[in-house]
Amino acid sequence: MRAAVVGGGIIGLSIAAELLRRGADVTVYDPAPEGTEGAWHVAAGMLAPAGESVFEFPQLERLLAASNELWPAFAASLGDVGYDDAGTLGVALTADDVTEMAREWKHQGLSPLTGSQLRELAPSLSPRVRAGVFAPTERQVDPRRVVRALRGMLGGRTVNRFVSDVSEVEADVVVVAAGCGTAGLTGLPIRPVKGQVLRLRGEPGLLRHVIDGAADGRHVYLVPRADGEVVVGATQEERTDSTPTAGGVHDLLRAALDLVPGLAEHELAEVTVGHRPGTPDNAPVLGTLRDNVVVAAGHHRNGILLAPITARLIADLVLTGKTDPIIDDFTPGRFGCA
Amino acid sequence: MRAAVVGGGIIGLSIAAELLRRGADVTVYDPAPEGTEGAWHVAAGMLAPAGESVFEFPQLERLLAASNELWPAFAASLGDVGYDDAGTLGVALTADDVTEMAREWKHQGLSPLTGSQLRELAPSLSPRVRAGVFAPTERQVDPRRVVRALRGMLGGRTVNRFVSDVSEVEADVVVVAAGCGTAGLTGLPIRPVKGQVLRLRGEPGLLRHVIDGAADGRHVYLVPRADGEVVVGATQEERTDSTPTAGGVHDLLRAALDLVPGLAEHELAEVTVGHRPGTPDNAPVLGTLRDNVVVAAGHHRNGILLAPITARLIADLVLTGKTDPIIDDFTPGRFGCA
Repeated sequence: MRAAVVGGGIIGLSIAAELLRRGADVTVYDPAPEGTEGAWHVAAGMLAPAGESVFEFPQLERLLAASNELWPAFAASLGDVGYDDAGTLGVALTADDVTEMAREWKHQGLSPLTGSQLRELAPSLSPRVRAGVFAPTERQVDPRRVVRALRGMLGGRTVNRFVSDVSEVEADVVVVAAGCGTAGLTGLPIRPVKGQVLRLRGEPGLLRHVIDGAADGRHVYLVPRADGEVVVGATQEERTDSTPTAGGVHDLLRAALDLVPGLAEHELAEVTVGHRPGTPDNAPVLGTLRDNVVVAAGHHRNGILLAPITARLIADLVLTGKTDPIIDDFTPGRFGCA
Repeated sequence: MRAAVVGGGIIGLSIAAELLRRGADVTVYDPAPEGTEGAWHVAAGMLAPAGESVFEFPQLERLLAASNELWPAFAASLGDVGYDDAGTLGVALTADDVTEMAREWKHQGLSPLTGSQLRELAPSLSPRVRAGVFAPTERQVDPRRVVRALRGMLGGRTVNRFVSDVSEVEADVVVVAAGCGTAGLTGLPIRPVKGQVLRLRGEPGLLRHVIDGAADGRHVYLVPRADGEVVVGATQEERTDSTPTAGGVHDLLRAALDLVPGLAEHELAEVTVGHRPGTPDNAPVLGTLRDNVVVAAGHHRNGILLAPITARLIADLVLTGKTDPIIDDFTPGRFGCA
């Protein structure tokens, strides 16, 4: 079986690695195989299976949860990629923020914690934080290290080439996993959703858990790495440009500092802009598009979390033509394009 | 007359250019003659002769005003360096900010303007801005273009060399104009005062005047260039590190966006950190240090504004041994070092 994967981001690479593991002859096509163009480069790597998107598209929740269960083994297969299971603290600053967040927390079935209980777990939280939860199954990983590991596993199987037409690619099956570029290749309604993300750097130890919070109406997450880096994300803008803006950076810093004032002395080390591949229902597109073309794209804010299950489902499809029925809600057909 | 200038920042170069113009054989020593290490690279270039420092050291006001009068001719001699005489709007957001700023405005003898009057002059000012003044003699210049022009004028007269001991330098007179580096060369009490400065970029036309304001207790200035760049400065921290911090960038963005909300969509194009050379009284050190050594350093926040008068006074001293008595308040002797 000769399989081609168009797109060398975290989804394409995860699929290619799984195909390789199962014995396929796989080639990855990407115009910048060593580059940092993908959404993965910007992504914080929060593995949050119960985010807001489950209200938009309820079937997504099952998929997210299933992929979350695959993550420990997937991470172990990659070596040290910063997989960290300290868990996430959901926090809220004002009474309005509590109301806003409580919907998610209730949906997750988590017990509410007071501000003091939260600060016992995370002493650097602001005294203004008034309520929250502890979500032990919401973990984190470093997407840049994941991609580096996957690239290493795929060795010389990556071709530096921009594919503009799927029919150019010679293979038994072609998997289109080109993120936002999937729209041009397939006609599927995938749009870029701009996100601005900051990386702060300081002494390790200020935070142990991921912080997923609301601060005066703004949603923000803080993902602390073991080396002292803290990723702060993210804006969500229906825009195609790649410009970090004064307003976007301000909003992220304001919310981050309101929740964890001690971050003020951290270095502002990176300001990055990425584009999530969004679909009309913001759930991914997974399945057969036509004869020998399979698509795996449109993962929006869940690309890192969904990488392992996407790899498994798509490898099944490519190698056997069928897979777990969990995929049925995510077919390209739901947009009338297949 | 062979003159040597140690330091190729805006002060050293201005002095060297003046010496050259008056016929001296001048050499500039700098370890990075094409570099961007100097405070000038970070400075916004606001030419504000009546800033807060006049309360700290009243004699400084005369020096600042005298240099401000030299600027039009100095700028003209350099070509197009972004010298712009649209003037400055002093603005205040809250009642407390008005109280704080009113002291300076009163000292300058400027007539108060209402928020509406200010917005007629600058429609992009926030509706929350409640009072201010128009200061027509507070102008701006682009320090990076000034340094580029001065470097061009000095051509091959710059030597790429770090001077660690003034006695190494062979010349009839040595001028030490090494900014913060002057401390190590002379023993003078000059300390680095960290400043973080942002450069935003967008469509030109949002602002015409320099905005010098107070926003909820934070002083901020916005210096708009003709090409759409807006320089936002500056923090003032008694620190020696060169790290842009989350807190510093946040504070500048917050104040800038409070005063001019339309900046939110501007690109955050640059975050820079510089060190102003400060003295115990935050006024410059100008004069003869010993036999054939003259010093011109410690200009703190006024290096750009004071460049032309410093050049004139120091060139007088080097070439004739005497100069205008306005220099008498700024001798190194006031710190007991000469």
